[in-house]
Amino acid sequence: MRNFKLTIEYDGSGFSGWQIQPGRRTVQGELAATLAPLGRGGLKIIGAGRTDAGVHAAGQVANVLLDTGHAAATILRALGGALPRDILVRGVEEVPLSFHARFDARDRRYHYVFIARPTALWRGRFHRAPGDLDTGAMRRALAALRGRHDFSPLSAAAGERRSGFCTLSAAELIEAPPLVILSLTADRFLHKMVRIIAGTVLRAGRGEDARVAAILASGDRAAAGPALPAHALYLMEVRY
Amino acid sequence: MRNFKLTIEYDGSGFSGWQIQPGRRTVQGELAATLAPLGRGGLKIIGAGRTDAGVHAAGQVANVLLDTGHAAATILRALGGALPRDILVRGVEEVPLSFHARFDARDRRYHYVFIARPTALWRGRFHRAPGDLDTGAMRRALAALRGRHDFSPLSAAAGERRSGFCTLSAAELIEAPPLVILSLTADRFLHKMVRIIAGTVLRAGRGEDARVAAILASGDRAAAGPALPAHALYLMEVRY
Repeated sequence: MRNFKLTIEYDGSGFSGWQIQPGRRTVQGELAATLAPLGRGGLKIIGAGRTDAGVHAAGQVANVLLDTGHAAATILRALGGALPRDILVRGVEEVPLSFHARFDARDRRYHYVFIARPTALWRGRFHRAPGDLDTGAMRRALAALRGRHDFSPLSAAAGERRSGFCTLSAAELIEAPPLVILSLTADRFLHKMVRIIAGTVLRAGRGEDARVAAILASGDRAAAGPALPAHALYLMEVRY
Repeated sequence: MRNFKLTIEYDGSGFSGWQIQPGRRTVQGELAATLAPLGRGGLKIIGAGRTDAGVHAAGQVANVLLDTGHAAATILRALGGALPRDILVRGVEEVPLSFHARFDARDRRYHYVFIARPTALWRGRFHRAPGDLDTGAMRRALAALRGRHDFSPLSAAAGERRSGFCTLSAAELIEAPPLVILSLTADRFLHKMVRIIAGTVLRAGRGEDARVAAILASGDRAAAGPALPAHALYLMEVRY
């Protein structure tokens, strides 16, 4: 048995998310079907992040245990010819059997991309935001989020038994008119956390009181903004 | 009768081009159907450029003669609510009856967008080019194209009776890794001229002899590159 690390780009629009589900088209499912002929035995693909339906990835990482004699370069070439056009494996690297794409990840970086004008061309890629966004207020809201907090109130994981503590090591706003990119890096992300942070920070950008610090302090999910649509969310990078 | 100038963005992927054709979904056809209830009589929409099937526009311009009492702002709002999501009218302005979007245009600017790496996410928007593009050679090929020439050999208009002379006032390469954008501005463009210039300049970028000056001098269409796909072509701006 050998272990391979894959770096994967995908257009999320055609998928019911990362994770295999019966009767649904998923990224993990397409990868499994394409990898199966390359090895023998219980093919297991572990993704660093289980992206939801519609979420894109520029740098998802997964590892796959394969009983194969093929070299990494051969697997890369084989995948290139066999995968559907909305998935691209950008790299394949052999790693120790102990490597686990999810547990070993040091941090993940996501982008949520706003477009600050109406658009027809980019409507399925970016989320429409008002043209007069107060990016200063958005930056102040982000500053209050940095560090180690229980992010449950800014996620769809409220009520779960697992700890909601995450360390948000970077939370930046990148202005590239007409795009405004929210870039978040953390050791882990709770379910819908980026999209709810984006919805909450967008409130600040609209001049509303986003009350970010109060939400974190009180744990009041109801005070947070809505989860914004999946089509503007990109998993950019996973670091080990 | 009043004359209105429209500035239009569209995602070309869902259209058989700009121009009305029976039984086909076209941008002009959708605009005509949406504008019809706003005025009386022979609705005529004149576009500055007749983009082909699949070509996008960030700043197409058209004028429409309407027998209406509505103000420009009312028409803009009405279009906003009624147009399909892949067309956006960005502005409506009343202009003199003599204004003609095609004949009065001073110049048009097109972008042809290369992406210099494989991609799944942007496969329907940009054209894949090799990672080791020789952008210096592309710039030298573009320099030979600037100015007033008979561009017929770099178009699909060879054999037409109309003059092939165009004045290419700007021909630039914008590098925004991983994107490489070919930006062309001219008083007029012949059929498929941008896509054939893109195909010819890409040859230079690949280290082949693009022979741009020789093609213009000899008029030899066969020596030019292929017309690259429509999905990476954007009509950016029309100036008056």
